[in-house]
Amino acid sequence: MSIITLLTDFGISDEYVGLMKGVILAITPSVVIVDITHQIDPQDIVQAAYTIKSSYRYFPTKTVHLIVVDPGVGGDRDIIAVQVMGHFFMAPDNGVLTLLYDEGKIDSIVRIDNSTFFLKSVSQTFHGRDIIAPVGAHIANGVPLNTLGSEIGLTDIIRLKDLSARISPQGELIGKIVSIDRFGNLITNIDSKQLLEYAQSAQDGKPQIRIGDNVVNGISPAYESADQQSALAIIGSRGYLEVAVYKGSAKRYFNVEKGDLVKVTI
Amino acid sequence: MSIITLLTDFGISDEYVGLMKGVILAITPSVVIVDITHQIDPQDIVQAAYTIKSSYRYFPTKTVHLIVVDPGVGGDRDIIAVQVMGHFFMAPDNGVLTLLYDEGKIDSIVRIDNSTFFLKSVSQTFHGRDIIAPVGAHIANGVPLNTLGSEIGLTDIIRLKDLSARISPQGELIGKIVSIDRFGNLITNIDSKQLLEYAQSAQDGKPQIRIGDNVVNGISPAYESADQQSALAIIGSRGYLEVAVYKGSAKRYFNVEKGDLVKVTI
Amino acid sequence: MSIITLLTDFGISDEYVGLMKGVILAITPSVVIVDITHQIDPQDIVQAAYTIKSSYRYFPTKTVHLIVVDPGVGGDRDIIAVQVMGHFFMAPDNGVLTLLYDEGKIDSIVRIDNSTFFLKSVSQTFHGRDIIAPVGAHIANGVPLNTLGSEIGLTDIIRLKDLSARISPQGELIGKIVSIDRFGNLITNIDSKQLLEYAQSAQDGKPQIRIGDNVVNGISPAYESADQQSALAIIGSRGYLEVAVYKGSAKRYFNVEKGDLVKVTI
Repeated sequence: MSIITLLTDFGISDEYVGLMKGVILAITPSVVIVDITHQIDPQDIVQAAYTIKSSYRYFPTKTVHLIVVDPGVGGDRDIIAVQVMGHFFMAPDNGVLTLLYDEGKIDSIVRIDNSTFFLKSVSQTFHGRDIIAPVGAHIANGVPLNTLGSEIGLTDIIRLKDLSARISPQGELIGKIVSIDRFGNLITNIDSKQLLEYAQSAQDGKPQIRIGDNVVNGISPAYESADQQSALAIIGSRGYLEVAVYKGSAKRYFNVEKGDLVKVTI
Repeated sequence: MSIITLLTDFGISDEYVGLMKGVILAITPSVVIVDITHQIDPQDIVQAAYTIKSSYRYFPTKTVHLIVVDPGVGGDRDIIAVQVMGHFFMAPDNGVLTLLYDEGKIDSIVRIDNSTFFLKSVSQTFHGRDIIAPVGAHIANGVPLNTLGSEIGLTDIIRLKDLSARISPQGELIGKIVSIDRFGNLITNIDSKQLLEYAQSAQDGKPQIRIGDNVVNGISPAYESADQQSALAIIGSRGYLEVAVYKGSAKRYFNVEKGDLVKVTI
Repeated sequence: MSIITLLTDFGISDEYVGLMKGVILAITPSVVIVDITHQIDPQDIVQAAYTIKSSYRYFPTKTVHLIVVDPGVGGDRDIIAVQVMGHFFMAPDNGVLTLLYDEGKIDSIVRIDNSTFFLKSVSQTFHGRDIIAPVGAHIANGVPLNTLGSEIGLTDIIRLKDLSARISPQGELIGKIVSIDRFGNLITNIDSKQLLEYAQSAQDGKPQIRIGDNVVNGISPAYESADQQSALAIIGSRGYLEVAVYKGSAKRYFNVEKGDLVKVTI
């Protein structure tokens, strides 16, 4: 019994996700398919990059993760498969896997070009169904990566830059909102380790979190630490800094959008 | 082969539901996971209480139902597991299971506090992933409830009050809208048995259903009993009184919201 | 291991889809259930007809496809099951299966009326749960169609008319938009074969695609053939003509709705 996860920007109004599952099950009927989400904002590679990094480790090793956020479908971008930390990842070569390369030793990177494993007829608009689903099913079946294409190196693939939070010349820790969840929580790219190091370098003063002209003081241990409808900062379930409003929506409270800056000072 | 159902207010935009499934499958790979819904309105315990009561009996006995609508996450509320009617239910102790306690003999209620069965690292914001998913997987694996925590009684847990419709001093049967479905049907908390008893006590007169200033006469046997775009009252698929508009939306027709009153008179 | 697919207009806010799965799994625990989509626009039989036609062939033969778009629930419409191309389809007899009858030899059509295979209590509002789910589970279990009801012929069932694109008296190929997907792509009912024949009959001139007062010239091989934010026509993943905007939304670009006409001239 193996597992394939799906992470896409397809939404669920259309048949696209269902067709990927049909293709997978026709090849490997006993696989379990899990939707991580299909609601990545259309073509938002950064949001997808953080989501897969925060998700994969809750699945057993040998899980095959298929990430289809693919603005370049039908163009000349490649499709790649990567083995790292005992998991398999397949995606268009557009940088969506960037954050995984730092997770641990990379066992293999392959450019998927052996069309034996594709559907017989490959459309120009839906490689998720015609290439990624069938090849992913074969990986779940135990086909070695190097059978599926040519081994390549880290320098041969696209990596996104400036994904992580950074220290500004003025000494602020500057990140941004990479996702806003259903509850209106603002999920940043400032990870807990980075925040801790920053605080320690400032002799453990109390961090102030700034969003636009607003300031939130300190990191709370739980939502309930704040008054109802008050803002708080917290290390969220991803292990990243989140700004929330207890029993309310931080998105509405601060009137912010994905991509807006979040600054930490001491 | 056992079944775990999920009923949450997580929505499906984020990775939260997918992570619960990953955690479950890592513990019990052969379980079948079914989403009842993840679109409970955020933190609406009443809506969730009616949804699980209307749903569980369509699953085989021994199914494990995980209900995660959890305004108090990270605070000091408990997590409980209940065995009733041959089914298992686990949820935060916030009253969301209230309607199940009247379904039949309660075999066991347990406060989940044996952290052996939790994920190793428990966040303060996502007990669904870190406690409820892994413990639920162990229940599906056959771990007895009393291994997971301490047995408690009905008086030790939180039960919601005033969930059911009631007879007013003026002799009206007064309920409310607890859900509005995709088609705009208004689903009330007036169950068919209660409605029948009320009608009989009034010598079987024809019920009138009042929503605000509007009146719907009688209970229809099917949607088609009404003219197109006309309102009708019907016993819906949950076994509760629903107000619908044939080939239209009762929500728009009456301009109502969840929580609005529905009154029955004879 | 067999597969059941679900294609409905139930949405995913309510418990309806989950209950169908519970009923199915109680009868056939080892089946794999795949959601094609539950977001067919309420009661849009035409949209559903094109979706199932474009979807079924990606699943293995013997798959059981349950299509529940059912404006006539509780009235006197029948429920039918059809075996064609080695797949099974069950739906209300309202024409939603029309496009499948031309896919190949029809092995069997049955009016489902053997209530032995229904749930014991059948509601007037949810035949998907009470009839279609349990009967579908029995089909997946290998129960022959003719055990489930009486064999009927193609002339006994409802077929939708005017589904396909047609040549106007002025010699235009006239189709319409049958779906608009998450990305804003306009999916028409003009199939690639029909378009090719039309182009050949006009001595292979370059097709012009007209939507309202707008014109798109030629058929592009891929999204990237157009400039960013420019419109293009393409044979989409369904094998039908689609109008798209590269890295944009054709729905917004043309300000159109499902049902609007799309005309091809040479």
